[in-house]
Amino acid sequence: MCRVLPLAGGENGKEFCKPSPRMPEPPVLGTSRLQRALDIQPRNPETGDERLTSGLEENSHPTRSRVVIERMAPEIDGGRFPIKRVEGDEVVVTADIFADGHDLLTAVLRYRRQGEAPWREVPMQEVGNDRWCGRFTVGAPGLYEYTLQAWVDHFKSWRRDLAKRIESGQDVSADLLIGAQLVEEGCRRAGGADAMALEAGAGKIRALARAQSDAGDGAAAGSNAAASRAEEARRVLDEEVAPLLGKHPDRRFAAVSKNPLVVSVDRTQARFSAWYEMFPRSAAAEAGRHGTLRDCEERLGYVAGMGFDVLYLPPIHPIGRIHRKGKNNNPVAGPEDVGSPWAVGAAEGGHKTIHPQLGSLEDFRRLLAKCRDYGLEIALDLAYQCAPDHPYVSAHPEWFRHRPDGSVQYAENPPKKYEDIYPFDFDTDAWRELWEELRSVALFWIDEGVRIFRVDNPHTKPFQFWEWLIGGIKAAYPDVLFLAEAFTRPKVMYGLAKLGFTHSYTYFAWRNTKWELTQYFTELAQTPVREFFRPHLWPNTPDILTETLQYGGRPAFMARLVLAATLGANYGIYGPAFELCENRALEPGREEYLDAEKYQLRHRDLSAADSLRDFITRVNICRRQSAALQSDANLRFHNVDNEQLMAFTKATDSLSEVDLVVVNLDSNYTQSGWVQLPLGELGLDEQQPYQAHDLLTDARYLWNGARNFVELNPRVCPAHIFRLRRRVRTERDFDTFL
Amino acid sequence: MCRVLPLAGGENGKEFCKPSPRMPEPPVLGTSRLQRALDIQPRNPETGDERLTSGLEENSHPTRSRVVIERMAPEIDGGRFPIKRVEGDEVVVTADIFADGHDLLTAVLRYRRQGEAPWREVPMQEVGNDRWCGRFTVGAPGLYEYTLQAWVDHFKSWRRDLAKRIESGQDVSADLLIGAQLVEEGCRRAGGADAMALEAGAGKIRALARAQSDAGDGAAAGSNAAASRAEEARRVLDEEVAPLLGKHPDRRFAAVSKNPLVVSVDRTQARFSAWYEMFPRSAAAEAGRHGTLRDCEERLGYVAGMGFDVLYLPPIHPIGRIHRKGKNNNPVAGPEDVGSPWAVGAAEGGHKTIHPQLGSLEDFRRLLAKCRDYGLEIALDLAYQCAPDHPYVSAHPEWFRHRPDGSVQYAENPPKKYEDIYPFDFDTDAWRELWEELRSVALFWIDEGVRIFRVDNPHTKPFQFWEWLIGGIKAAYPDVLFLAEAFTRPKVMYGLAKLGFTHSYTYFAWRNTKWELTQYFTELAQTPVREFFRPHLWPNTPDILTETLQYGGRPAFMARLVLAATLGANYGIYGPAFELCENRALEPGREEYLDAEKYQLRHRDLSAADSLRDFITRVNICRRQSAALQSDANLRFHNVDNEQLMAFTKATDSLSEVDLVVVNLDSNYTQSGWVQLPLGELGLDEQQPYQAHDLLTDARYLWNGARNFVELNPRVCPAHIFRLRRRVRTERDFDTFL
Repeated sequence: MCRVLPLAGGENGKEFCKPSPRMPEPPVLGTSRLQRALDIQPRNPETGDERLTSGLEENSHPTRSRVVIERMAPEIDGGRFPIKRVEGDEVVVTADIFADGHDLLTAVLRYRRQGEAPWREVPMQEVGNDRWCGRFTVGAPGLYEYTLQAWVDHFKSWRRDLAKRIESGQDVSADLLIGAQLVEEGCRRAGGADAMALEAGAGKIRALARAQSDAGDGAAAGSNAAASRAEEARRVLDEEVAPLLGKHPDRRFAAVSKNPLVVSVDRTQARFSAWYEMFPRSAAAEAGRHGTLRDCEERLGYVAGMGFDVLYLPPIHPIGRIHRKGKNNNPVAGPEDVGSPWAVGAAEGGHKTIHPQLGSLEDFRRLLAKCRDYGLEIALDLAYQCAPDHPYVSAHPEWFRHRPDGSVQYAENPPKKYEDIYPFDFDTDAWRELWEELRSVALFWIDEGVRIFRVDNPHTKPFQFWEWLIGGIKAAYPDVLFLAEAFTRPKVMYGLAKLGFTHSYTYFAWRNTKWELTQYFTELAQTPVREFFRPHLWPNTPDILTETLQYGGRPAFMARLVLAATLGANYGIYGPAFELCENRALEPGREEYLDAEKYQLRHRDLSAADSLRDFITRVNICRRQSAALQSDANLRFHNVDNEQLMAFTKATDSLSEVDLVVVNLDSNYTQSGWVQLPLGELGLDEQQPYQAHDLLTDARYLWNGARNFVELNPRVCPAHIFRLRRRVRTERDFDTFL
Repeated sequence: MCRVLPLAGGENGKEFCKPSPRMPEPPVLGTSRLQRALDIQPRNPETGDERLTSGLEENSHPTRSRVVIERMAPEIDGGRFPIKRVEGDEVVVTADIFADGHDLLTAVLRYRRQGEAPWREVPMQEVGNDRWCGRFTVGAPGLYEYTLQAWVDHFKSWRRDLAKRIESGQDVSADLLIGAQLVEEGCRRAGGADAMALEAGAGKIRALARAQSDAGDGAAAGSNAAASRAEEARRVLDEEVAPLLGKHPDRRFAAVSKNPLVVSVDRTQARFSAWYEMFPRSAAAEAGRHGTLRDCEERLGYVAGMGFDVLYLPPIHPIGRIHRKGKNNNPVAGPEDVGSPWAVGAAEGGHKTIHPQLGSLEDFRRLLAKCRDYGLEIALDLAYQCAPDHPYVSAHPEWFRHRPDGSVQYAENPPKKYEDIYPFDFDTDAWRELWEELRSVALFWIDEGVRIFRVDNPHTKPFQFWEWLIGGIKAAYPDVLFLAEAFTRPKVMYGLAKLGFTHSYTYFAWRNTKWELTQYFTELAQTPVREFFRPHLWPNTPDILTETLQYGGRPAFMARLVLAATLGANYGIYGPAFELCENRALEPGREEYLDAEKYQLRHRDLSAADSLRDFITRVNICRRQSAALQSDANLRFHNVDNEQLMAFTKATDSLSEVDLVVVNLDSNYTQSGWVQLPLGELGLDEQQPYQAHDLLTDARYLWNGARNFVELNPRVCPAHIFRLRRRVRTERDFDTFL
């Protein structure tokens, strides 16, 4: 028979008929005692193998909680990894929470800074279909934990039922007595002043029950007197009892979510940054001279002036001489060749030494201090590999693998050989010493004041090494950021992000069509990936000159810059190659730069007339003016009836700022089309005109309705960055109108 | 610098330069020893709180495995609940498996019957994007476990690299020596005959290395002699070494998936069954007499003849007299009123007693035996609740909740009261005795030979009670099936299914439009829900006479029958109300039957001319002839350009059978439209005609291409059940054609 429902109410019901109101604590039974209690003997001694005892150990009754907490979110791999946030962010936690029957539940979200006591607690709300939601705000960088607790709330259930009974005119005298008992149990949990107040409340309820009962069994139900008693009961419950009882709920049988989940909180720069990558050795004012860290100081105004806030330097350490590469990756270097800075280490020193041609440690400290004056931070490169003449190679041969002839194993991707690079053997028997030494490299620079590292090729070192290194360092220095430079398979990139990297290079460079960009950034922004993977977008790097840039000319550089800077709250360029639109490849079909700065000095005219410097400055100003563009959340793509035009919005949670970016992906031709916006979801009024204010050009357009026309000439500017403003002034805004 | 890749190969590389080939076992370090090993002192004694030690405990290096196993599927709530299968089913297991770097991996799927040793093992294959797949077949009912193991395969990586080196004409003498060492390490793992064969192989590889080396450093590379040596190396590796070494992989650093996941395997009837629900007391041949179990025997031919295989009987126990309900749920019963069988228990006995008016336990045994002759199984009703005069009430007042006046608390859904039903208090202090007694009820009937239970309102009893009861019983009796009769919120229904119910009632009765049916059954068949929730479809029950049936007449009964019987491999009807198209409701807007059998005897003419008996028989024959319809997998909906026509296919995995069902949802008018099928995915040839054979009517249609016309007159038959046959005979099939 369906729909025959049992009495609302749960664990305490049995108390109703007992003389002593004091409820004994329930026995806490271990699995084995429970099992003994529940075991029954085999039913058929003939077939002795059919014992009911066999399955009981797994199926014993672990707790007396009736509540189930499931599908908690956000949660990464069952809590194996933390989610990421920055200071001041809100964490919105949801879960399926339900129990058997029809009792009402109460659920709370508990959170704290890891290692701190006590937990703070906020109530959760049911948002439909047994899904509950709560939220809390994280503070200073570090680790936070959150967990859920939920229980059957007998008092809440009783009140709901009481209201229904009163509404249908039933005699509720017995029900009031049940409620009074629930309140009295609350007294005992409360103690102190609350207990006294609750006891008074219980007394009033009992008095009402007596009055109702005295008025006759149901006869008076529905009468005026009964109605006024009901009203009084409601008032006592609402005003005197419920708020106090809510402070002292019966949590003995509360369900608790599994192990606390963790939030890794970074400083704000983890969410929003603009990086400028630059080779210090090319910073000399005169052509042909090896640049120095002192020369870099002169460049800071230029970089900061464009609106960048992180200056990323490729490795600044001594460069190996053995097997040094010449210009354009020539396997034989000439005596003047400067080598690749990623071939770290030489007689002068290794990862903790400044390349003498760049200057001294003192120079580095000066540069760091100067950067601060310009609002710039320095990001250093952690390239955990050695040139053959790195001091580690002779001091610690056990940190490297060896070939059968006794030589050290160089890096390879068969059949290619990279004889100028010795990878570390992370699995060496001396792994503990090696790992610790590698960590000490990062700590050395942290000690000097560096707080950002760009990590070279992390995907070729064990995951556990990074988890250990980053976890340990961030526990002591929560403000340190690590950018993972891994261009590899998706699962590996996500794996590195999960285990602790602050942000990650992406496939952005190779996502060029509307379909590709929409697919990829939808995955990054609208799936659980966004909880752990912070994209860092680079239109170029010293290794990557994409075909789009090679063949698209200045319009392609402009379009890709706007895409990087608006699709990604974190982005960077490799300059001055980027702003000067350098686009000559080593050979057709390759993405390598001709005369790549990796292997030689380069001298450029930064004041070239066609430099994108002013355009980049403008784009970075747009980013600084827009809270919406400073986050990767709330990215949504919109329909344009032209495959060469793409449109997307970013909006703040409150919709106080809605920015619409439209980009012409065609570097050659003017393209036009109709952009379709879901106005309601963007907080815009279908019936009112609204303003599209192009933050790039300061042009203002008056738009109406969901579909509006755009046209972009790539030779002029291939993009709009519109601020959509809800309200446009009309005659009604004049005081004199009415 | 990106794309500088380290040497392929991992843990054993360090062996290459050591004189002793015997590798010591790596120390197994506990977390705390590791932590001591890795700890470093605080760097700034002034700011003593910034200690690097703080984060290390969590971030210590737990294993030396480099492999990550993630997102294993199928997996329910992180392994908290088993997936469901029936005997002979294949379990297809997938997971993301990857490591740092570019080494090749080997992964295996391990499985066993729970509690049995040893594990069996099958290799997994990579299926793209670091996703791996393996499969195994489960046997007899019971619990099975599966887990994954994966490791970096240095030998496989070495062979891949060797092939690339040979292809590019490199001198591989040193590489061959490295390979010989890997083979020799395999010898030591192998022992016995395999070891001797591997040693011989290693010797051959060393000889080839010497020959290559003697031929001169790279000079001979690319020569004929080098090519023949390469060919010989390939042969030795392929034929003599690889198969043997594959038997003895180096698993010391293998990664293992988390706790083994569990499969709950049922007998085949759990996947495919047709139930017939019938009130025994209405089985009398003559009107007005109370039917008996003996009368039921006479009905078996009728039921089995229609093709049903489960006969489900509402509770057959004594019916309470206190507060007994009269006809049409009248709160006052007359002396002749028979009461609701769900008001279990009276002076004659309770849940282990047969209602005397139905007969004796001996009669029940006879009925059970007779059923077997007809290929029918009996399903009994487990209704864990009591009439007020149930013997439990006086013998065990502590199993019930009491009101302040000392009376037992009846069932309620305020403001409604069900005074003829006392629910058990599952949270009573005497819960262990209560739970055990309730289990003994099921065991009593199991002892009598019953193997199927339909469980009444399981959602009003604690989840943990069911998990304990079902888990314990199935451990001893793996062939017992439990059908959950819960019509409640989705999460609760899924929760009950997860914790062990074999199948579950669904919302089918209230899903009537094409959109509703498509949404709901897509959720059930194509999401992870299908791993644990087996839908059991009922167009009607004694409680549910939907408006569709009330107003749609015979065509609606036919359409709903076909939908239930083909959308669900498990389905049932409540008869003879269903086949006789009884559709009079108690009052407009309610789903209650008029003169409901729940409260009174009913006598019907089973031979009525308009009975659906023959139609039902035909539908059940279709089901028995179709392996595709005997499973809920591979359900796919297809487009029809008419909202009143719905079309879906079910196909076997091999596509050996593809059945297309088309139903007219409009009970009043003939509807026609074009059905669009994805022929390629159904194994049909776009270029060839194919046959649509209506299994209901035996009509055969020749169809061409993806779009075909259907027309259904509900007054004749509102459905097609087509078998699609790939090949149609043509002139080319005649021997004389060529």
